[in-house]
Amino acid sequence: MNVEVINTGTELLLGNVLNTHLKFLAEALFPLGLRIGRQVTVPDGDLIREAVVEAAARAEIVLITGGLGPTTDDITREIVAEWLGLELVHDEEIMRAIEARFARRAMQMSPRNRRQAQRPREAVVLWNHHGTAPGLYFPPVAMGGRMSPHIFLLPGPPRELKPMFNESVLPILQKLLPERPAFALRSYRIAGMGESGVEELVGEPLLALGLEVGYCARPGEVDLRLIGGPEELARAEEMVVKKLGGHIVSRGGEELEKVVVDLLTARGETLAIAESCTGGFVAHRVTNVPGASAVFMQGFVTYANEAKTRALGVDAALIEAHGAVSAEVAAAMAEGARAAAGVDHALATTGIAGPGGGSEAKPVGTVFIALATKLGPTVVERHRYQHERETFKNLTAQTALDLLRRRLV
Amino acid sequence: MNVEVINTGTELLLGNVLNTHLKFLAEALFPLGLRIGRQVTVPDGDLIREAVVEAAARAEIVLITGGLGPTTDDITREIVAEWLGLELVHDEEIMRAIEARFARRAMQMSPRNRRQAQRPREAVVLWNHHGTAPGLYFPPVAMGGRMSPHIFLLPGPPRELKPMFNESVLPILQKLLPERPAFALRSYRIAGMGESGVEELVGEPLLALGLEVGYCARPGEVDLRLIGGPEELARAEEMVVKKLGGHIVSRGGEELEKVVVDLLTARGETLAIAESCTGGFVAHRVTNVPGASAVFMQGFVTYANEAKTRALGVDAALIEAHGAVSAEVAAAMAEGARAAAGVDHALATTGIAGPGGGSEAKPVGTVFIALATKLGPTVVERHRYQHERETFKNLTAQTALDLLRRRLV
Repeated sequence: MNVEVINTGTELLLGNVLNTHLKFLAEALFPLGLRIGRQVTVPDGDLIREAVVEAAARAEIVLITGGLGPTTDDITREIVAEWLGLELVHDEEIMRAIEARFARRAMQMSPRNRRQAQRPREAVVLWNHHGTAPGLYFPPVAMGGRMSPHIFLLPGPPRELKPMFNESVLPILQKLLPERPAFALRSYRIAGMGESGVEELVGEPLLALGLEVGYCARPGEVDLRLIGGPEELARAEEMVVKKLGGHIVSRGGEELEKVVVDLLTARGETLAIAESCTGGFVAHRVTNVPGASAVFMQGFVTYANEAKTRALGVDAALIEAHGAVSAEVAAAMAEGARAAAGVDHALATTGIAGPGGGSEAKPVGTVFIALATKLGPTVVERHRYQHERETFKNLTAQTALDLLRRRLV
Repeated sequence: MNVEVINTGTELLLGNVLNTHLKFLAEALFPLGLRIGRQVTVPDGDLIREAVVEAAARAEIVLITGGLGPTTDDITREIVAEWLGLELVHDEEIMRAIEARFARRAMQMSPRNRRQAQRPREAVVLWNHHGTAPGLYFPPVAMGGRMSPHIFLLPGPPRELKPMFNESVLPILQKLLPERPAFALRSYRIAGMGESGVEELVGEPLLALGLEVGYCARPGEVDLRLIGGPEELARAEEMVVKKLGGHIVSRGGEELEKVVVDLLTARGETLAIAESCTGGFVAHRVTNVPGASAVFMQGFVTYANEAKTRALGVDAALIEAHGAVSAEVAAAMAEGARAAAGVDHALATTGIAGPGGGSEAKPVGTVFIALATKLGPTVVERHRYQHERETFKNLTAQTALDLLRRRLV
């Protein structure tokens, strides 16, 4: 069955509000074997009708969000009922639910809210436990030679839409789809390799297996998404693991920092992080993981040279001789952090984020990343990331965390 | 002029990626007097063509995002050129830019990247300084009885799209719209006050001045956007400054951390930051500001209690007596950081991000924020932010930086 989504709301097209509905609905529909073929955002008002007509020509299921409120620009209910040739009638049960909601919150109901109690007899009410506007489900009706799609009207605010979708829409869809899909989604998060590099290694064999293959690149990582039957996915798994091996950070979208924290937790080992150019960002990512406190002991944001000496014991003469951005200082930072915090592993970053501070030998974007670990000698990597500041930090953090991950797996 | 946006990308319709383009483009177009009439998301592949045909029938400007990458599912360039009847040719200048990019990063170019150097002679190249895929601008061409719209192809990744839009697309649009709207946009960034609080103070008088008023709330801050004539804006300015006073962080959208770094730079003063619950995020925000190294000396991410004692000299008995999340420990952390780093001001955060770790006296979300400063005695604020981890960190960082900002202005 084809699904299309129509988001209504002038505020979405003005950029006042970020549209999170598509992502939510897509993720919720996928386990049912349903995929959204197309999504459109239209302003409040008459253009909704055109969008409904277009979607109905292509899809068997149409989800419409927004335009169910009490104000005059909220006319989704009226437009859909009129298009289907259904008459709106006052529903006393809806009215009482709206009144009860106002009473519970000791608020005055506006006469405008009466409009929200209207519905065609043929529509099924989707109760709203987080707002006044009920949703509506219009089962297919005959229109000329063919049937209209299944149409669902859902409220605009995400905190109303999400529970209504889970409580009321999913059960209806499940009944429409007694046979569960034969295909599944598998995703791999890959570090240390670009999008085109991943495709070169596994793209053709995956297509040859008859799988749908998608790539999504972010700074320092690539998601590889495979859609297909369970047998093909199992065969793909073997090939992907063989070809990408240690580059695979996780299956199913787990973040690199979560993988690192889980690995450390499983090993009962601890971590410290010394940061110059990343300025606390590596520690921030690690401490975003619930439970990080069991393994992450201490971070050192040693921006000034004196801080590197004072907090990490980096010899001032070493900084003088090689510069603060050098393999020697990176190693000394990691080893100093490991000793100062008394931990099993310590990462260190030092580099030139720019825009100033570069030289011919060490141009802007140069960064040294070190890992001091009880597992062996200290390692230092040199990279160059020519990006604006935030992406520079992101790539450096990514490489640092992946350096540790590869050591732990 | 009507503007429509076409977002391409199967990953958007699968819900793997949140579509932030519409919001960015809408906000960027608004000051030009342009509003987006409709937005559609279509999967990679042939459906892009249908979306282009539909949008072209309604709009004079069509912005298309995504599908410019090196992989086989990236075919936006080909589809648009074919629809316009233009021939794709190899562009040696683009090729050299892509090759130079790979060379700078010491990475191997894939033969697939050659496709990205193709363009019709009639199209204008929009250079991409943050990725390989150049954008393209197709000026109108005659098609049957009418002209095609202005079509812009932009890369999918936001960190490539945003600078390209600002650097290359805006100047072209500005030339297309020789008569600038008589109205201007002014925005105020406000901290320490909610959206409804701001509206209560200034909403009605601003509307009475005939201004279009918009509010945009983010964790810990609100943007107040005013649109109107220069005279009305000047009168509004006086009233807004009088009513919101010290709550105004900046005019024109400057971030809080930038304002703090600029204030410290102007005063020639230095900063250290000691973080427990924010885990490096405050330091990360400060070090996102170019030039922060002149004022930010050192950060201490003291997650473990022993780290607080060792790095900041917080008395273990104090932690034992009051708990690590307490006003006493927050103050001792700030004072310890100020002394250890030898700086003029030091901020400290300690709190319970959750989900675990709360108690009746200090429930999840409790946080203490301290400022030790040469300007006077140490101050500690207690707050409660009941949000998931990242928003908790964000609100805490926001409050900490604003505590310092208010002390410096």
